[in-house]
Amino acid sequence: MSELADVEQRLPATGAVAERRGLRIDGDRLLGRIDRLRQVGGTADGGVHRLAFTKEDVAGRELVRGFMREAGLEVHTDEAGNIIGSRPADSAPAAPTLLIGSHTDTVPDGGALDGAYGVLAGIEVLHTLHDHRVRLERPAAVVVFANEEGASGTRGMWGSHAFAGALEPGDLAMCDRAGTPIAELAARIGGDLDRVADAAWHPDRIAAFIELHIEQGPVLEHLDAEIGIVEAISGRLTVDVIVRGEANHAGTTPMELRRDALAGAAHLIVEVQRLAGADGVVRVATVGSIAIEPNAWNVVPGTARMRVDLRDVSVEAIEAGLDRLRRAAAEIGDRTGTVIEVRPDQLVDPVACHPRLQGLIAEAADRLGFRRFALPSGAGHDAQVIGRVAPAAMIFVPSIGGLSHVPAEDTAPWHLVAGADVLLQTVLGFDPGPG
Amino acid sequence: MSELADVEQRLPATGAVAERRGLRIDGDRLLGRIDRLRQVGGTADGGVHRLAFTKEDVAGRELVRGFMREAGLEVHTDEAGNIIGSRPADSAPAAPTLLIGSHTDTVPDGGALDGAYGVLAGIEVLHTLHDHRVRLERPAAVVVFANEEGASGTRGMWGSHAFAGALEPGDLAMCDRAGTPIAELAARIGGDLDRVADAAWHPDRIAAFIELHIEQGPVLEHLDAEIGIVEAISGRLTVDVIVRGEANHAGTTPMELRRDALAGAAHLIVEVQRLAGADGVVRVATVGSIAIEPNAWNVVPGTARMRVDLRDVSVEAIEAGLDRLRRAAAEIGDRTGTVIEVRPDQLVDPVACHPRLQGLIAEAADRLGFRRFALPSGAGHDAQVIGRVAPAAMIFVPSIGGLSHVPAEDTAPWHLVAGADVLLQTVLGFDPGPG
Repeated sequence: MSELADVEQRLPATGAVAERRGLRIDGDRLLGRIDRLRQVGGTADGGVHRLAFTKEDVAGRELVRGFMREAGLEVHTDEAGNIIGSRPADSAPAAPTLLIGSHTDTVPDGGALDGAYGVLAGIEVLHTLHDHRVRLERPAAVVVFANEEGASGTRGMWGSHAFAGALEPGDLAMCDRAGTPIAELAARIGGDLDRVADAAWHPDRIAAFIELHIEQGPVLEHLDAEIGIVEAISGRLTVDVIVRGEANHAGTTPMELRRDALAGAAHLIVEVQRLAGADGVVRVATVGSIAIEPNAWNVVPGTARMRVDLRDVSVEAIEAGLDRLRRAAAEIGDRTGTVIEVRPDQLVDPVACHPRLQGLIAEAADRLGFRRFALPSGAGHDAQVIGRVAPAAMIFVPSIGGLSHVPAEDTAPWHLVAGADVLLQTVLGFDPGPG
Repeated sequence: MSELADVEQRLPATGAVAERRGLRIDGDRLLGRIDRLRQVGGTADGGVHRLAFTKEDVAGRELVRGFMREAGLEVHTDEAGNIIGSRPADSAPAAPTLLIGSHTDTVPDGGALDGAYGVLAGIEVLHTLHDHRVRLERPAAVVVFANEEGASGTRGMWGSHAFAGALEPGDLAMCDRAGTPIAELAARIGGDLDRVADAAWHPDRIAAFIELHIEQGPVLEHLDAEIGIVEAISGRLTVDVIVRGEANHAGTTPMELRRDALAGAAHLIVEVQRLAGADGVVRVATVGSIAIEPNAWNVVPGTARMRVDLRDVSVEAIEAGLDRLRRAAAEIGDRTGTVIEVRPDQLVDPVACHPRLQGLIAEAADRLGFRRFALPSGAGHDAQVIGRVAPAAMIFVPSIGGLSHVPAEDTAPWHLVAGADVLLQTVLGFDPGPG
């Protein structure tokens, strides 16, 4: 990461700097491409249904390859199915590559921007450099990571795991819900699982990865900020909680003889809210699902099953949250006559965004006059996977109403252009051009 | 009800009293009949599936008619399908009739005792009087009320409503879930809906109704009491509660910007527990069912729907409970950013058991040396319907583990015999015989 530290020592001559700082992306071209990609798998309600490995995904990727070629990029599909659109270095061909990008697959009945925006803005940035013959010292590339969303029950962030050399044996053996092996799925998008290890980039080859993305939350809109600088991508612990009581007649069982599983669950849900917020230990804590048995209005519930989701940028905070959850469960179990089982499931480690990259994004936003705000990402992203092996950062633009993963997912056009301009200026800040 | 007030003035001679007080039912015969009826619709796990209007119901009823004839009763099926096994008065044929009984239909996969016990014990009591040529001043009868449980989506307590003249136009027009009209269903068990008004007994014809039943709750077992004297049958208000918040990404939506419907629901469930118990206003309060949307572990819940069940022997208490529920909903809605709709649905009025009948049951239990306890009935019973037009009372025996409406529903044999002996002595206390 020494190449990050000495950027400022290698700035080009003042006149060239001013010219580069005045550079702006072509907003109409960017918005036009977003609209064209939106048509691929577009649904009647304005949403997009473009699951990885489907014919819509294949068609969307083909469209994106065309955009890359228009941008003067050399297009390559790796063994995992990631698409890489590269431009050669202007003076240091052996230097590590600056990567920008995201993904183009969507969740079922999702929106037009999650992933697609970061890919198309990345292409637009390199297209702008191409149009204006702006030189970069080092190689740069736009990456489209395959199957970020985890189509049909497969593991998500598939492509970025392959790229980071982080695939595990189970990833290669997995099938989708229809029983189709990942090898066959990946082949549909040009992958070759027999040689998937070749898709992995050695960390030394990656200068940095910068992912531009919609926020998928309400914070920037709420604060009236144009640009979000992601400090870290939250880690996540999912915890299965089972409250066991006793099903009984709701009319004939006195309150003091009940062991009401839903009452126990309700006390615990209230405590989960307190794990986050003012007196909390984690950033967000959620109970998103619950099922009770027998779930009949005239029967005291005998069992309640919930899933708790704890997220924070610190593993210690998540562990403290789990500890509090366990203590609350024991105390509430005693108090309500129930037995509450707390079973931690999957822990996804948080990943800090690289401070120097965050600084470059902040400088770019400030120079462009945008209000910026530093925030964590609560959702998972490919940057989280690449960030474990190389410097990574994320730029957010506001989501209207905080919505995402739904057809109404949207961002104001000027915010889409602003984000791409910040990405362009960040790239130029990162690579001052041949010395 | 003046005939209740002056019972003691008309007691028979002391010797006869002693003889009557020494009378006991035939426990083996009672338990044998319970076992025989259990076979009709019996399931592999020891339970009983004998839904009203089915061939199992018809077969069970035919068996019971035979028991009635063995007991020397005259058997009649009324226009609603109720079976009445009568014995004539020994000295006052025009006097109102003392009715004892219950029902023989079950819930799906129910137990052997709910309803059936009260019917068979009623037959056993009159059979014992018949065996010992004990004379009663007034007419007495065992009644089997049709469709108490509300088979296949029909209104329950059908037969007792018809008997009490309390059928409403909707009851005559109703169909079961398969679309079969009640007229056709009732015809299967000997009813005739064109003349169903003839099934109604004028209240003046009913001296009293006494229903012996399993408790269906854990109280008597918990207190180690053999006999429960029901003070009143609880009224019940069901309330639909809908909590409306906003579904959002569980990772990207900060706690302070959430409108979490499940968090709102949890606070309200905790408050519902407080509506009953030490500082409560109703006897029992239950949330037995809940459904949330979208019910995905990584999405903040947008909507929660619950059903609240409030029961008490006082309508005023139920109304106070509803009032507290409304206030809690408004306060919690404000606090959690949700909108909580409280929609009271069906109110079933409570019915007090006749104090003089309660006294007779207590005397009978005391004389027989049984520990007794006065308690409300939380479940609904035919006695609730008859109790609106005539003096009614209920005797409970303990339910093992408080269970009912399940195959494991059971009561110790000596408790079944004890309950029938108390019923016998209550009948003898009520009707001191020809003066």
